[in-house]
Amino acid sequence: MELKKYKHKAQYYETDQMGVVHHSNYIRWFEESRVDLLEQIGFSYDKMEEAGIVSPVLAVTAEYILVTRFAEEVFIIPRISSFNGLKFTVSYEVRSAESNELKAAGESRHCFLDSSFKPVRLKKDFPDVYKLFMDMLNHEG
Amino acid sequence: MELKKYKHKAQYYETDQMGVVHHSNYIRWFEESRVDLLEQIGFSYDKMEEAGIVSPVLAVTAEYILVTRFAEEVFIIPRISSFNGLKFTVSYEVRSAESNELKAAGESRHCFLDSSFKPVRLKKDFPDVYKLFMDMLNHEG
Amino acid sequence: MELKKYKHKAQYYETDQMGVVHHSNYIRWFEESRVDLLEQIGFSYDKMEEAGIVSPVLAVTAEYILVTRFAEEVFIIPRISSFNGLKFTVSYEVRSAESNELKAAGESRHCFLDSSFKPVRLKKDFPDVYKLFMDMLNHEG
Amino acid sequence: MELKKYKHKAQYYETDQMGVVHHSNYIRWFEESRVDLLEQIGFSYDKMEEAGIVSPVLAVTAEYILVTRFAEEVFIIPRISSFNGLKFTVSYEVRSAESNELKAAGESRHCFLDSSFKPVRLKKDFPDVYKLFMDMLNHEG
Repeated sequence: MELKKYKHKAQYYETDQMGVVHHSNYIRWFEESRVDLLEQIGFSYDKMEEAGIVSPVLAVTAEYILVTRFAEEVFIIPRISSFNGLKFTVSYEVRSAESNELKAAGESRHCFLDSSFKPVRLKKDFPDVYKLFMDMLNHEG
Repeated sequence: MELKKYKHKAQYYETDQMGVVHHSNYIRWFEESRVDLLEQIGFSYDKMEEAGIVSPVLAVTAEYILVTRFAEEVFIIPRISSFNGLKFTVSYEVRSAESNELKAAGESRHCFLDSSFKPVRLKKDFPDVYKLFMDMLNHEG
Repeated sequence: MELKKYKHKAQYYETDQMGVVHHSNYIRWFEESRVDLLEQIGFSYDKMEEAGIVSPVLAVTAEYILVTRFAEEVFIIPRISSFNGLKFTVSYEVRSAESNELKAAGESRHCFLDSSFKPVRLKKDFPDVYKLFMDMLNHEG
Repeated sequence: MELKKYKHKAQYYETDQMGVVHHSNYIRWFEESRVDLLEQIGFSYDKMEEAGIVSPVLAVTAEYILVTRFAEEVFIIPRISSFNGLKFTVSYEVRSAESNELKAAGESRHCFLDSSFKPVRLKKDFPDVYKLFMDMLNHEG
């Protein structure tokens, strides 16, 4: 499966007075690329909602390597790096669209909950989605 | 009724690369002070929700007069400036907490909708809230 | 001059608990489309900066007509609607990328300042930029 | 040294369509409390700027334990948990102001740079600040 790279252009309102994108926005960029990945593999938010699943964030990490300036374009490259049927981890790289230099890297951890906030066992309840995630595991975008 | 002034301290993440608070944040500050006003007059969000009312924003305006810098404290002073039983307008002043200089002014317009997004006639359906708003009309904070 | 439409996909972090995009984000979308317009007409932020010009926001207005939901795509269509050599106004329409329905409309007013925050007279100091703005005036994107 | 607890009230614009505060905002709350801590110990942003020091974020982590709802009040409790003269780590707890329950925990790592983005050796260049940080190390707020 060929995934399309997710591109983001740094917005003026994302900068801070140090003249670079504020670090909190990378956490939002991770989300943008995660939503895009799930959509590309056929598990869009609409489908999740139909299935009555939510997937909250349990934890995030981010390392900041190079700053991003206003109007710069970056690729945010997500990858499902672990999955055990209950929880999954997405790893991210933020790279300059121009030079491909690594600007930031990070992870987010998630679980699946049903509408009453009970954990969902994908293998049993959503075997198709389970297979999707297994296929994506360590898939090189 | 004596209202307590709403104070906000400009956060680092609210600044942009011009070295001042980004203009979009004043719209958020208006909301902060509006929520605080409604809470102070006894019509908190919880009570609205219990009553099954939502109050979406129909329009906003803002004029920017003086910049606000990181760590500066401002008062945001809301005032219910019009109300006809169906819609209301809140007017805002953002003033330096130190010098009282006017930094920005603006307005937001709102209606009341029930849970099925039908307009609510406050006078008939929520006479207490109707009276509250009438009392607050042009109240000098 | 043929301008490319500016598209934005509503992000999860832009929603609020009413389940729609928070109204403050439209002000940011206006900025996104304004930056894009200025870039397309050859007056990017980099060029402004080189020329030692900043262009702060003097005022904004927004009217909210239809809500935007998470993952919806919208076009933000900016148009330079007034310009007198000292100040300019940009008018915006936010339209559903799917149905073309009008979701929001608004304006922002700006001036040009030099690096010491003195007003810049474009006609005299930057005749090329002056001509650009005159050409764009009421240009139908 | 007795430190005042840093309190934040969850704003409407901080919620997302899951009906709770969006996870990216906790990273901003960490910053709010860090700025407040540095100010309380006498090393405000103004003083840093005077001294020609910036202190960028090298990394952040956050674990999300309990959701925060609109209008809830939380304490964000920062603590300087490591410092070696070149880099420092701040650890955070976000706790319900009502119940004291732990909602989130995290860390941020920072260095000190001078105005030409060279690392600053606090002990040599700013012995007073060095002593401050050493005193604060593992100080129980």
